[in-house]
Amino acid sequence: MIKTDILIIGAGPTGLFTVFEAGLLKLKCHIIDGLPQPGGQLTELYPKKPIFDIPGYPSVLAGDLVDNLMEQIKQFQPGFTLNEKADTIQKLEDGTFIVTTDKGTQHHANSIAIAGGLGSFEPRKPLIEDIEFYEDKGVEYFVKNPELFRDKKIVIAGGGDSALDWSVFLSNVASEVTLIHRRNEFRGALDSVEKVQELKHAGKIHLITPAEVVGLNGSEHLESIDIDENGAHRNIKTDYFIPLFGLTPKLGAIANWGLEIEKNAIKVNNALDYQTNIDGIYAIGDVNTYPGKLKLILCGFHEATLMVQSVYQRMNPGKKHVLKYTTVSGIDGFDGTRKEAEKQVVKSIE
Amino acid sequence: MIKTDILIIGAGPTGLFTVFEAGLLKLKCHIIDGLPQPGGQLTELYPKKPIFDIPGYPSVLAGDLVDNLMEQIKQFQPGFTLNEKADTIQKLEDGTFIVTTDKGTQHHANSIAIAGGLGSFEPRKPLIEDIEFYEDKGVEYFVKNPELFRDKKIVIAGGGDSALDWSVFLSNVASEVTLIHRRNEFRGALDSVEKVQELKHAGKIHLITPAEVVGLNGSEHLESIDIDENGAHRNIKTDYFIPLFGLTPKLGAIANWGLEIEKNAIKVNNALDYQTNIDGIYAIGDVNTYPGKLKLILCGFHEATLMVQSVYQRMNPGKKHVLKYTTVSGIDGFDGTRKEAEKQVVKSIE
Ligand SMILES: Cc1cc2nc3c(=O)[nH]c(=O)nc-3n(C[C@H](O)[C@H](O)[C@H](O)COP(=O)(O)OP(=O)(O)OC[C@H]3O[C@@H](n4cnc5c(N)ncnc54)[C@H](O)[C@@H]3O)c2cc1C
Ligand SMILES: Cc1cc2nc3c(=O)[nH]c(=O)nc-3n(C[C@H](O)[C@H](O)[C@H](O)COP(=O)(O)OP(=O)(O)OC[C@H]3O[C@@H](n4cnc5c(N)ncnc54)[C@H](O)[C@@H]3O)c2cc1C
Repeated sequence: MIKTDILIIGAGPTGLFTVFEAGLLKLKCHIIDGLPQPGGQLTELYPKKPIFDIPGYPSVLAGDLVDNLMEQIKQFQPGFTLNEKADTIQKLEDGTFIVTTDKGTQHHANSIAIAGGLGSFEPRKPLIEDIEFYEDKGVEYFVKNPELFRDKKIVIAGGGDSALDWSVFLSNVASEVTLIHRRNEFRGALDSVEKVQELKHAGKIHLITPAEVVGLNGSEHLESIDIDENGAHRNIKTDYFIPLFGLTPKLGAIANWGLEIEKNAIKVNNALDYQTNIDGIYAIGDVNTYPGKLKLILCGFHEATLMVQSVYQRMNPGKKHVLKYTTVSGIDGFDGTRKEAEKQVVKSIE
Repeated sequence: MIKTDILIIGAGPTGLFTVFEAGLLKLKCHIIDGLPQPGGQLTELYPKKPIFDIPGYPSVLAGDLVDNLMEQIKQFQPGFTLNEKADTIQKLEDGTFIVTTDKGTQHHANSIAIAGGLGSFEPRKPLIEDIEFYEDKGVEYFVKNPELFRDKKIVIAGGGDSALDWSVFLSNVASEVTLIHRRNEFRGALDSVEKVQELKHAGKIHLITPAEVVGLNGSEHLESIDIDENGAHRNIKTDYFIPLFGLTPKLGAIANWGLEIEKNAIKVNNALDYQTNIDGIYAIGDVNTYPGKLKLILCGFHEATLMVQSVYQRMNPGKKHVLKYTTVSGIDGFDGTRKEAEKQVVKSIE
């Protein structure tokens, strides 16, 4: 059983920054995310795109913002349960919670911060017979761990940035990469399209367009796929089939936790601490709703900051927390490191 | 008469970022500040100190954060009335406002955003007889415009960073710089203390410690000062006397505008749009108060963002504003420039 003060569901920018603000109050955090990496929408949907409305950043690439947040929270040593979805919650008699993931991992925490954004990302699955049978047996909707494909034959399907970028990346890992798309045209960053073009000429990526995967074969594990290439049928041997047709976020299991939901978002008390109707469960960032709510990154940062103060009160009833400026007090990490402003000296001038 | 959509009182980080969020909604802003430069507490009190809790910045110097904010809002061409304090307000029949400064400059705006922080900065004045008489006649509590001191004799008093840093800076501007402090020890950045040390040895700064200025002389303008140097009296010829003994923020005239005030801060509706008890007047950043309020930079950013949505509604009744992501839509500046993400291409691979 993993134990922590605040269990954060969702490793998007809101969840990540929560670790920092909690750390300032000496509260420990653990984060669950269904995706293989932290960053939420920023990493999964637009890592190479600039954001212009992060205060103090005239422009910052989404992926860089996530890297910076990871660097900022490092000192507070958050735990991560990645590739798993928060599934069920149980409130114990003492007011603490146990959250169990879809893979059975249990987490025990004083308070819960749901920072689930638009929900956990569910892949858009192609309509191919028996595809569910091959899931985890050769069909993968995410590249969770590129090493899985080391020296294997893989087929990627899709026409967007994910399909292009993973084809490029995995061409150095897999023994054979085939990219299939139902049109001739790809839609993505010019850079990505050009790299695939190069790798095709170098013989490192096989391209089949316009074509569609229509069948999957193999007894225990995927062995080959059937393709409809402009009306003609073909069979290709492959170890893996990775359809990358985009993701749809779904609130999922959290919708059944007894929380007040409005338009797919969780209602919170924005006049105080972003708590939900259940004492000890908070919702921050894109996942919550209140009058005037804006689904913006900078709003999640503020909500996280106010929320951890409320958790502090829950954990230290009657104790008053005095706000200290980071500039003035510095920061003591849980890893023993200290960040601080250069000290002033008191010195006479001779 | 200066005309604008939102008149912002206070050019601290909150006021500055308001310009950006307003710009996204095509609303124009003008800022009044009593200080000679934008940046509020960050520039006036700790420009060279690192802040550790700006989201996405593991560390950023306060002065750099202000520079970045100025760069970020540039596209939206804010107007500035600096060195003047918002003094009186008048609500017109049509619900708009006229704000007049202590120097008589008038501003006409649809809505008012008070982002006055802890108030306008009032200098701590030394207790010297007749000092008020010499204000603007040789006694200056701020360095508003260094050129005023070009080729003049100046005396600076104080033992902190401001006194040290202005002595260093003005040693290249004034014909003669004398630094007086009532102790031998200065308290400041090591760097600043060392520079003054060097300049003293080079004969570019005269140091008199421990000493105090006890009298001011001159008929029309300051001509000389009397010093008590460890009991002995001395008279020094000087054109200017600049006592830098720190600043105390005072809410000042705004306290008489009919706003609900609690503990020196303005009460706002944090459950919706940070509006005060007067329709059309908002208060954001350190200057406001509500249950759970934290006087942090990042909170002012969120408050500004929600507030401008409310102003938009005020100015466009019945019109629904649809939130657009800056990443997706780009930003059109009022200066004709455009910022946008690199476009995706739709391209076939041969
Ligand atoms: C193309 C695009 C451009 C954008 N541009 C901007 C912009 O310019 N400015 C701006 O401010 N915002 C922008 N946004 C919105 C911004 O990305 C979101 O506001 C932000 O990501 C919200 O952060 P979050 O941490 O609340 O949630 P998310 O980033 O959505 O992260 C939530 C995380 O929770 C996880 N999760 C959800 N449910 C579960 C569960 N049950 N178990 C485990 N994990 C779970 C998800 O996997 C996800 O990783 C843009 C969004 C998109 C798609
Ligand atoms: C030493 C120090 C360290 C700090 N460290 C941190 C930190 O690490 N993290 C953090 O988040 N915060 C920190 N803070 C607090 C932070 O500086 C404030 O939260 C922030 O400055 C508030 O911004 P603001 O824009 O609301 O107000 P301010 O920065 O106070 O700006 C208000 C401006 O309004 C002007 N003004 C007021 N009244 C009038 C008037 N009537 N007419 C014209 N102008 C007027 C003032 O001159 C001022 O320039 C620190 C503060 C100090 C002093």
